[in-house]
Amino acid sequence: MRAFIMSTGDEVFLGEVEEKNGGFIAKELISRGIDVIARAVVEDNLEKILGVLDFGLKSAELVIITGGLGPTHDDLTREAVASYFGVNLEIREEAREWLVKFFDKLGRGVPPLQDRQLFFPQGSEIIPNELGTACGFILEKGENIVIALSGVPWEAERMFTKYVLPRLPRLEGNTLKRIHTTGLREAEVYAKVKELGFQDVKVGICASPSGVTIYLRGGEEEVSEAVNLLKKVLDTYVYGEDGETLEEIVAELLQKRGLTLSTAESCSGGLLSHRLTNISGSSRYFRCGVVSYSNEAKGSLLGIPISLIRDVGAVSAEVAERMAKGVRSLGGSDIGIGITGIAGPTGGTREKPVGTVYISLAWDDGTYVEKNVFPGNREMVKFRTTQRALDLLRRFLLGVVPFGQERDS
Amino acid sequence: MRAFIMSTGDEVFLGEVEEKNGGFIAKELISRGIDVIARAVVEDNLEKILGVLDFGLKSAELVIITGGLGPTHDDLTREAVASYFGVNLEIREEAREWLVKFFDKLGRGVPPLQDRQLFFPQGSEIIPNELGTACGFILEKGENIVIALSGVPWEAERMFTKYVLPRLPRLEGNTLKRIHTTGLREAEVYAKVKELGFQDVKVGICASPSGVTIYLRGGEEEVSEAVNLLKKVLDTYVYGEDGETLEEIVAELLQKRGLTLSTAESCSGGLLSHRLTNISGSSRYFRCGVVSYSNEAKGSLLGIPISLIRDVGAVSAEVAERMAKGVRSLGGSDIGIGITGIAGPTGGTREKPVGTVYISLAWDDGTYVEKNVFPGNREMVKFRTTQRALDLLRRFLLGVVPFGQERDS
Repeated sequence: MRAFIMSTGDEVFLGEVEEKNGGFIAKELISRGIDVIARAVVEDNLEKILGVLDFGLKSAELVIITGGLGPTHDDLTREAVASYFGVNLEIREEAREWLVKFFDKLGRGVPPLQDRQLFFPQGSEIIPNELGTACGFILEKGENIVIALSGVPWEAERMFTKYVLPRLPRLEGNTLKRIHTTGLREAEVYAKVKELGFQDVKVGICASPSGVTIYLRGGEEEVSEAVNLLKKVLDTYVYGEDGETLEEIVAELLQKRGLTLSTAESCSGGLLSHRLTNISGSSRYFRCGVVSYSNEAKGSLLGIPISLIRDVGAVSAEVAERMAKGVRSLGGSDIGIGITGIAGPTGGTREKPVGTVYISLAWDDGTYVEKNVFPGNREMVKFRTTQRALDLLRRFLLGVVPFGQERDS
Repeated sequence: MRAFIMSTGDEVFLGEVEEKNGGFIAKELISRGIDVIARAVVEDNLEKILGVLDFGLKSAELVIITGGLGPTHDDLTREAVASYFGVNLEIREEAREWLVKFFDKLGRGVPPLQDRQLFFPQGSEIIPNELGTACGFILEKGENIVIALSGVPWEAERMFTKYVLPRLPRLEGNTLKRIHTTGLREAEVYAKVKELGFQDVKVGICASPSGVTIYLRGGEEEVSEAVNLLKKVLDTYVYGEDGETLEEIVAELLQKRGLTLSTAESCSGGLLSHRLTNISGSSRYFRCGVVSYSNEAKGSLLGIPISLIRDVGAVSAEVAERMAKGVRSLGGSDIGIGITGIAGPTGGTREKPVGTVYISLAWDDGTYVEKNVFPGNREMVKFRTTQRALDLLRRFLLGVVPFGQERDS
């Protein structure tokens, strides 16, 4: 079975809003053994949607469209699919019931503007939208199946997972697995993968600011064997699988060990505490965060003498360590993290170029501090800083290098 | 002139890494009057790339491809284009010179792995990559032009802006303009746009967690007239144009007025200080941030009596106001912002459902506090909270509602 994925909407076409549905659906389909020809992103224009739909239906049996099911004149998915197959649009009472239910919860009636959302191509089956107003549909025509879902990511995800996925076949011989590493360069991972010389598994390698991810595709058994081999070889550099984030891993470890955390950030500007608090339930282990951007704040909040900052510089191992210790005691937590550096693009010197970042961990009877020089623009330096800080925390909680022995492998 | 944009790479195809090139290039092309048929995202697979390339070249004169120019076996853009037009790949000395120059700067020689990056389709012109190893190319064949660029966003942007854009025609009668609003619902913006009844301008409306954006496309004069009309009608709800962010606008206003800021966040977990410090030079106006996740931190850091928190609840107008005042004095800044709420998915009650957020501003002789109930998941509630906080700050700095009179319009 082959599939083609289309996303419509001016905002995703122009890249103003990240297109999140296509990648999510592609991963789910591939994991089911369904081959995905390509993804397309099309603006709200009937002729263009029809052109891409035609390509999709000629290349694949299954076409999944997200977006274009809203109430305004530029929501064209219903019209495009009906016109392509030469069927009419008709009012569907099931959709009205879902709309009434949705607006009931908000304590009001269905506004007149929403009427367009009751029309669907003749012969289609309605997909309920429990989180929004745009119901979707499934239309089977001969060999082809077209599935239309809301463009809002969490609505699309719910509709796809609950109403579409259970009906898709699970084909043998194709599995997608991802292994996430951090701390190694792409070439280092590539060399290890080449050494292992996989034959029955398709291997892809991708470097991003999070680290290097390895994609494995093939038969279930072969992929699972490859995963085990890679984990052994890459050892503590592997932090997660299949989309797990470092903040999720760290959250689990902190809770398992019953430890609490506070953070003091300078150049990362609060991104570390933001990532930590993206995890629901983080109040159980996150005590407090301080973004001590000015030297005065480092002094008054964290008790770092201004004279020390003057002597060694705000961007220094000493100050990072004092920040970690200071915020640990301020928050009354088991662990403190201190970060100070130069995110750029200005502020760099010959000795401390842009990207220089000191990260420190403090715990009951010790501290650790290290210097990094991260490449990239301001956004990248901030992100890489927090990724390294989270990885240090993970390593501390696991008791692996630099906080313990390399594990037996 | 019509164009088609392709992005290759498993990581963008699977949505593991945001595909940023396609949207950027689409906007630039449209602004030049070039019609973009669609964008596609394809995995690293020769057959699939060829299939989509064929569709692109049959639908448009110009095809722009990003990605697939790296040194590994799954970088296939060179092979795909050469094979499509039936030409050979040949070594190009100009590319070697660029590679040598690039590695020289890093203080080392060109590694053997990089050799693949010297091959280009016969007859193509090399596009230098000043920021990375993947040079691009332009190949003209009959009516068709194929342009291949690096997949790394900052490399692609530099290559496109410096070497491609100057050679593209600037066609009359097509301009793209974006107006960003916040604080209005999509239906409210839609009603105002409908009232104005534009005829010569294509209008698109898009709601996102940032607010509602209006896209205008058409002749330069007509679009500029429409922009003026819309700005008048939407008044203080308009915060920026063409990709400007609220943090940029606020940064400008703070610097113009010479004012400083500190933030105290609970449910937004540091996202507000992260966004504020994404702006280079923010240390000029950002003093400090506090993420007081626990009640104890609200007490010890911001001087809020635990008894008050017990009486009125941590999520309350009183506590938000005390946080704003507390952090203002802690940071010694002109303005303080306090945020407390329930990001969810747990922690909501009947009286204070998930999404309930109090935001407060404190300045030398006054405070302001308001209650919001934001829809969406945890990530969305956090983002909408910071968007509203930044908009309140913008309004305060401009002296408009709720901090002053509605402007004459």
